[in-house]
Amino acid sequence: MRLSRYFLPVLKETPAEAQIVSHRYMLRAGMIKQQAAGIYSWLPLGYKVLKRIEEIVHEEQIRAGHIPMLMPTLQPADLWRESGRYDAYGPEMLRFKDRHDREMLYGPTNEEMITDIFRTYVQSYKDLPLTLYHIQWKFRDEMRPRFGVMRGREFYMKDGYNFDLTKEDALHAYNRHLVSYLRTYERMGLQAIPMRADGGPIGGDYTHEFLVLAETGESEVFYDSAITELRFGNRDIDYDDVAQCQAILEEFTSRYARTDETHDETLFHQQVPEERRRRARGIEVGQIFYFGTKYSEPMGAMVVNDKGERVPVHMGSHGIGVSRLVGAIIEASHDDKGIIWPEGVTPFHCGIVNLKTGDAEADAACDAIHDSLVALGLDPLYDDRDERAGAKFATMDLIGLPWRITVGPRGLKNGVVELTCRRTGESQELPPEKAVERIAQIYGKALAEA
Amino acid sequence: MRLSRYFLPVLKETPAEAQIVSHRYMLRAGMIKQQAAGIYSWLPLGYKVLKRIEEIVHEEQIRAGHIPMLMPTLQPADLWRESGRYDAYGPEMLRFKDRHDREMLYGPTNEEMITDIFRTYVQSYKDLPLTLYHIQWKFRDEMRPRFGVMRGREFYMKDGYNFDLTKEDALHAYNRHLVSYLRTYERMGLQAIPMRADGGPIGGDYTHEFLVLAETGESEVFYDSAITELRFGNRDIDYDDVAQCQAILEEFTSRYARTDETHDETLFHQQVPEERRRRARGIEVGQIFYFGTKYSEPMGAMVVNDKGERVPVHMGSHGIGVSRLVGAIIEASHDDKGIIWPEGVTPFHCGIVNLKTGDAEADAACDAIHDSLVALGLDPLYDDRDERAGAKFATMDLIGLPWRITVGPRGLKNGVVELTCRRTGESQELPPEKAVERIAQIYGKALAEA
Repeated sequence: MRLSRYFLPVLKETPAEAQIVSHRYMLRAGMIKQQAAGIYSWLPLGYKVLKRIEEIVHEEQIRAGHIPMLMPTLQPADLWRESGRYDAYGPEMLRFKDRHDREMLYGPTNEEMITDIFRTYVQSYKDLPLTLYHIQWKFRDEMRPRFGVMRGREFYMKDGYNFDLTKEDALHAYNRHLVSYLRTYERMGLQAIPMRADGGPIGGDYTHEFLVLAETGESEVFYDSAITELRFGNRDIDYDDVAQCQAILEEFTSRYARTDETHDETLFHQQVPEERRRRARGIEVGQIFYFGTKYSEPMGAMVVNDKGERVPVHMGSHGIGVSRLVGAIIEASHDDKGIIWPEGVTPFHCGIVNLKTGDAEADAACDAIHDSLVALGLDPLYDDRDERAGAKFATMDLIGLPWRITVGPRGLKNGVVELTCRRTGESQELPPEKAVERIAQIYGKALAEA
Repeated sequence: MRLSRYFLPVLKETPAEAQIVSHRYMLRAGMIKQQAAGIYSWLPLGYKVLKRIEEIVHEEQIRAGHIPMLMPTLQPADLWRESGRYDAYGPEMLRFKDRHDREMLYGPTNEEMITDIFRTYVQSYKDLPLTLYHIQWKFRDEMRPRFGVMRGREFYMKDGYNFDLTKEDALHAYNRHLVSYLRTYERMGLQAIPMRADGGPIGGDYTHEFLVLAETGESEVFYDSAITELRFGNRDIDYDDVAQCQAILEEFTSRYARTDETHDETLFHQQVPEERRRRARGIEVGQIFYFGTKYSEPMGAMVVNDKGERVPVHMGSHGIGVSRLVGAIIEASHDDKGIIWPEGVTPFHCGIVNLKTGDAEADAACDAIHDSLVALGLDPLYDDRDERAGAKFATMDLIGLPWRITVGPRGLKNGVVELTCRRTGESQELPPEKAVERIAQIYGKALAEA
């Protein structure tokens, strides 16, 4: 993409309303625009990051055997009366009437609707296990929306629901979600620690929240520092393997890690040696629940088991805050110049800065680098504008592309361009085709594919 | 995908509420479930088709140089007061108040919001031309929602907006959209005829609707039959080439083609020889508009031109009904057994029917075919259930996968499987690996890629 043809409205001034760094940088980098309190447009750069995160979530859900579908944003109130949550849910639920005076709401979550879908079509244990999920816009009418997309009102969430015959099977679904979430967050360059949590309005006997450590996190967290040494890495997972999923759950949750809601100071001291006790702040980026028959019983989601008895299914629900992750990743990965995107979610794979737009040789070299990267299936952003080098560097640093190729007449005389890592600031000079090759290696695209 | 692990709730009975074939087949094939009047869940099979259509729309928009972004579903009422449409828009607009009593609405379209985004960031003609688009859920509170996703209330739409310095530039954007739409629909296996239309509530001096001919269409249409001979085909398009886009517009719109709203019987008789005059019904699947400064003037979307004068930008908007297209494609492509998906939008590339699940040789052959197709990047649906062959064929015919590979012990004794075309019903026997090769050829995947 050539920047001269793109829409990247970066701001020089830091907007006054933004209190935390991710909100400031998202506004300054032209990623979002507020349209009403807690409601944002995703400008092209922000939209690209949102999509990359969504793609990773889809890929990992599908890998775990979960089936994508899509429920609508609006729901009839009657469905929520069946579970008893219509009255229980507070003013955070956006309620209204349609032109025929029917009571509706903008879905804040989908347990009722998915249970309705399940009971409509599934009658036999033979159709289990089943996990359905969707990624859809939700609305929670927060009293005081703030922190940009971190606590917005209209937000994008993956929510998945498992249906199982027994508690044992449902706990395997729970473990499977935990495993797939660990992998999901790591692909985004995040360390998200599963912490024992409280059920809240969803309910649930078993529940873990996933927290990313960050000074601006809304939750206080207490954990054993040994946890931060754990890496999921590139493990070969069989998501049907009950023992394997259970072992990974134990590996990642056996050490003390709790939010302030469930924290127990005495236990903390008993279980964690003093030098490993950590008190910090965290951002919640996901949560998993097992809640048994809480919805299936009142809503009549029953199956016939192998003895011919009708029994309520065991369920759980599992959420990832897709739009919130954009902010959380920035909170976890930035410096005073701007964002530093992990390679997994970067909106463009690298930037190309032309130090002298208009110089025939520099223009030709940039064009060639741009076109080579595109031919390799990569997505570079080429700053071809007639601007000062300093302004171009400042923009690239602000929007946080992990790699930058700088091209100028002086370097080209020696046959080289400069490849710079955004995170370390380290640069190296190398021939243009070697810079392209290096970027291709980083993103794992074999040159042969071109 | 193995059907035993998928969620495909096909219905044997035709639901009473469905009046048209696409609605009937979408319900029967387990593609959608109604959640409230005109509000649907997209079950896994329906969701896949919706996604394939969305992908084609994205690819063709990006090819035309248009920039993706995403606006929220909810909008503040104040924005619509600026354009004067808040009062003008009737009860189809879903209006409500949030917990702080602020007036909001569920966006039925986005001219106001995109104009607000534009005026916030763009001040100079140097940043033009610019076309931004998004694909997002919309809501129109139809009095009588019906025909399934064809006239739903919550619907998925691509809407794009061009911003240009002059009327001339904006008309090129109009032409560019027309060209990209022709290509978009043809990739979906549809012939969508651009017809001169009426501006309606969007407004507009120039507007064309794209109509797919179908008996169940809501519009009466009048056209010169010569139009149906036109094919867009695989043309090499330079979307910056003003003359080329203009020539294609003329090629596809110079002959008489109008909906009942703009039909002129006298002109029809003057321009079209009797033997080519057609009166039929059509389904609207898209519309493009040029409306000049209708929104930019009242909302103050101005740029400084090269003479230093502040002038309102020329705009247009351009929509494709993404969710509606799922129904339109079925209306245009089905028989009495079910849907017949065009290859471009099929939810699975082919079906595999195991005639004798449990037979070691048949199971092994099906597994091998399935895995070979997956390795080629294809997405087959393998019916591995323990069901009668007749039931398996009926399901495959109903859900409309364009190709079916049938595997049974008798054929395997002779080293062959059967490859069947859903559209023609023609079958041929061939060795399993040749069947895979043939499917790969059809979908244009080189075997070498594996």
